[in-house]
Amino acid sequence: MITFDTSPDRYQHWRLTFDGPIATLAMDVREDAGLSTDYKLKLNSYDLGVDIELADAVQRIRFEHPEVHAVIVTSLKERVFCAGANIMMLRGSSHGAKVNFCKFTNETRLAIEDASAHSGVKFLAALNGICAGGGYELALACDEIVLVDDGNSAVSLPEAPLLGVLPGTGGLTRVVDKRRVRRDLADCFSTLVEGIKGKRAVEWGLVDRVCPTSQFKDAVQKRARELAASSDRPQGGPGIALTALNPAVTADAIRYSLVSVAFNRDKRTADLTVQVPSDPVPATPEALVALGDRFWPLRAFRELDDALLRLRVNEPEIGTIVIRTEGDIEAVLAVDRFLAAHESHWLAREIVHFMKRTLKRLDLTARTFFAFIEPGSAFGGSLFELALAADRSYMLHDDDETNTIALSEMNGRVRADNARAEAGGPLLMSNGLTRLETRFLGDAKKVQQALEHDGPFNAHEAEAAGLVTAAPDEIDWDDEVRLAVEARAAFSPDAMTGLEANLRFAGPETMETKIFGRLTAWQNWIFQRPNAVGEKGALKAYGEQGRPEFDWKRT
Amino acid sequence: MITFDTSPDRYQHWRLTFDGPIATLAMDVREDAGLSTDYKLKLNSYDLGVDIELADAVQRIRFEHPEVHAVIVTSLKERVFCAGANIMMLRGSSHGAKVNFCKFTNETRLAIEDASAHSGVKFLAALNGICAGGGYELALACDEIVLVDDGNSAVSLPEAPLLGVLPGTGGLTRVVDKRRVRRDLADCFSTLVEGIKGKRAVEWGLVDRVCPTSQFKDAVQKRARELAASSDRPQGGPGIALTALNPAVTADAIRYSLVSVAFNRDKRTADLTVQVPSDPVPATPEALVALGDRFWPLRAFRELDDALLRLRVNEPEIGTIVIRTEGDIEAVLAVDRFLAAHESHWLAREIVHFMKRTLKRLDLTARTFFAFIEPGSAFGGSLFELALAADRSYMLHDDDETNTIALSEMNGRVRADNARAEAGGPLLMSNGLTRLETRFLGDAKKVQQALEHDGPFNAHEAEAAGLVTAAPDEIDWDDEVRLAVEARAAFSPDAMTGLEANLRFAGPETMETKIFGRLTAWQNWIFQRPNAVGEKGALKAYGEQGRPEFDWKRT
Repeated sequence: MITFDTSPDRYQHWRLTFDGPIATLAMDVREDAGLSTDYKLKLNSYDLGVDIELADAVQRIRFEHPEVHAVIVTSLKERVFCAGANIMMLRGSSHGAKVNFCKFTNETRLAIEDASAHSGVKFLAALNGICAGGGYELALACDEIVLVDDGNSAVSLPEAPLLGVLPGTGGLTRVVDKRRVRRDLADCFSTLVEGIKGKRAVEWGLVDRVCPTSQFKDAVQKRARELAASSDRPQGGPGIALTALNPAVTADAIRYSLVSVAFNRDKRTADLTVQVPSDPVPATPEALVALGDRFWPLRAFRELDDALLRLRVNEPEIGTIVIRTEGDIEAVLAVDRFLAAHESHWLAREIVHFMKRTLKRLDLTARTFFAFIEPGSAFGGSLFELALAADRSYMLHDDDETNTIALSEMNGRVRADNARAEAGGPLLMSNGLTRLETRFLGDAKKVQQALEHDGPFNAHEAEAAGLVTAAPDEIDWDDEVRLAVEARAAFSPDAMTGLEANLRFAGPETMETKIFGRLTAWQNWIFQRPNAVGEKGALKAYGEQGRPEFDWKRT
Repeated sequence: MITFDTSPDRYQHWRLTFDGPIATLAMDVREDAGLSTDYKLKLNSYDLGVDIELADAVQRIRFEHPEVHAVIVTSLKERVFCAGANIMMLRGSSHGAKVNFCKFTNETRLAIEDASAHSGVKFLAALNGICAGGGYELALACDEIVLVDDGNSAVSLPEAPLLGVLPGTGGLTRVVDKRRVRRDLADCFSTLVEGIKGKRAVEWGLVDRVCPTSQFKDAVQKRARELAASSDRPQGGPGIALTALNPAVTADAIRYSLVSVAFNRDKRTADLTVQVPSDPVPATPEALVALGDRFWPLRAFRELDDALLRLRVNEPEIGTIVIRTEGDIEAVLAVDRFLAAHESHWLAREIVHFMKRTLKRLDLTARTFFAFIEPGSAFGGSLFELALAADRSYMLHDDDETNTIALSEMNGRVRADNARAEAGGPLLMSNGLTRLETRFLGDAKKVQQALEHDGPFNAHEAEAAGLVTAAPDEIDWDDEVRLAVEARAAFSPDAMTGLEANLRFAGPETMETKIFGRLTAWQNWIFQRPNAVGEKGALKAYGEQGRPEFDWKRT
């Protein structure tokens, strides 16, 4: 079983050090400390375990070190920055493991970009040596790239020519869409095993600058301080500690303090429940900092995030997940008001962005989610996003109409003074829209009406406003929701993955959705193709005697 | 060998009739006239042959019938509009055949939308009976959908629940992005084998209206006339005849009047050459109409389009295609000036949109294209789009600098009176940008400079302006281009398909690119998965005894 909890004192592959506003995140992968003993992580190549530490480091810099304004991403190995994902690991992985590995590493790189865009933490890739494949894709996620000019060190994306697969961690997308490398040069670059170095790497836009070995460290330090100067983060701490989640894991459940996942293995479903305690909100931002990760929404979303990751990698057969909430809906709305009132405070900001990333993780989890909204539930504001993220939501239309949902500023904000209602909000999906905007695509009025509704919605009102999929009454409820889950669980898992990946992302595409839509979908196709994974495919042939044998038919 | 030439007098599956401004395109598929005898095309189900006729009909309405302002798409079968793609055909098809079938049917549906958006031909889907899968996807491509309300006729997308694959002809995308059906309702709809009928189909936004059987025909006629009234097409003819292309096909070449494709089968490459004759441009739009399909750019692009389609379906092993042009570059520029000067004339407009669609077809062809620009070539304006569409372009830097390329209004237009240069142009890619804009993504100045350049570019100037990938001199040329082609032809065909699909579409995504990027890539993945195509997969199990057996792991 793979777990995602780690901390700097337990890192095996990274060294995280601090020097005032500059943190240095240095890769130093331990060859023999991979998640499996089937491969050696040579030349700073990585597996999921290495990336789990990277994701943790980025997270902790945001929460535990508000004084950090720039991060240098580099390597402690001589002449090697990073050789990319470990090929022997990929070779030996199941299809599902490959797909989930790429999904997580993509989310980690997007989290780096999220920290830069929204938290005032800039990232400088200091490439002190060869930088291949996933190594270059990590650099691409940084704001700037400096490459040592030692006559040898190059950046490269050798996956296609060498292994018959794509650079699967956003490389192709970021080269043309983020760094805006001309598409024909990108084509040359991505088919050149040895990559591009020196001045040409700058001319093509693959890196921002090159620097002779003798000046490299100074130049990196200097540039990192310049990047740090633009930050709007606090000048000093304190941060808050992210303590270990330590869920109780049994054969049939994962139980955290506020989140639980109970498996119905014979039905291939799970019940995911989020508890809302009636804790009072902190009186001030200072009290929030003092509360730290005990503040329940942070705790609940951290647990939810961890639960989603475990579901993905450890529970592939659980295809349908029913989401419920329990507790005080007013407590959720009070938290949302508090977070909105203090949105300029660094910690409130971090918490909201963390909620956003967790909800994106849910959008990108290839499982069916149904939300069941029953009396005693707490689907308000930020927690109602769970219902909006779900493929369907069922709300019990109870006779006495005490079953309610509610919206808050977390679901979106309408600037009513404009002639044309402009929405937007803090919990954006990766398509750049709120979940309400995506739901009512092209019908801004419905978004506005929902957000301007006074007070909670009972089931009748929620259905009329289009906020829930169906609102069966007490007589129909049990049969209707049971049949919906049973029917879903009987469909082809692959068809459901494809269906959901298309229906969830209505509206505009962004670089982020392109990475998961276009790039990942093609990569997953290639990961199924005999030319890559067959006995004579390129991925299998790599490192063995002989060359791959291809079926030459183009598709 | 599959061919794409047909004409209304040879249609086996459609009846095309005319009544003033209204054309009726009625589906009446002949069960026993499929491309293969392995299946029967029951219930107006279709194969590639049926879609080739549909594509031809839409094309001919545009060129041969300028007086047509609206098209009713309906069926001549009782109680059946269309049952979608033939399942037995899909079952028996190779992976490549499935993929190419879906690509062509997608292009046909996009051609319907293109005619509506740009040519003033509106489409009304008149669903006189059951409308399932690809049948509903055809309806989705129309401007409006009327469904008969007979208590039985429903629209449905049963692919996922019934066959374990996706509706692969844009259905999922158009439901949420074009018709803006709420994503949770789209989820319910797309997992409901029996579909949705009557009032509910209207409420969910799946159709525009339902109509009792007794009023159906009158209502359709009335609405078609209303749609026709908005058209800016001529009130009468004449149109021009699209005569048969009749290429000479031998084992190693396809030769048309202006386009030729010569195969180097041992190298898995082809040489595609477009000839430019020095014909004078017509003096007036009337002379253009009189010239008809003998006007060389129309002829050349029709031949190019046909060649691309034949390459796709009949020559899967030809992975790399070298594009050359030969002739008078001034003749191309003169044609471009003529087309731009008469852009409001219906036929000039049709020709430009046809060029646009052909170039899109090239963008979407899963083969590597290299353009070789040598002395005597005619890469000017609209023909330079071939070089811009190519994955790379090599331009010989000849000693006497007579080898030139040139741009025209067809490559883009800059409105220089704006502070911020706004580009755009007639030959847009499916991402909504010109090829120059895509090439210099986010650098509008480079686009402007290129378009404002005075006269032709020699190789040095073209390279400096970023218009070609490389400009080797006479000493290096032979080796450099030979090695580039040889290296390309040795790579995994699947990796190249994925690479090109990502690098070609830098910049924004549109509904159109989402269909080919997100939707198709996922569909192709599913088309490889044992849960669909394995011995016990859903596609194989359909129609046989027993139910599919799934590997339940979610990916």
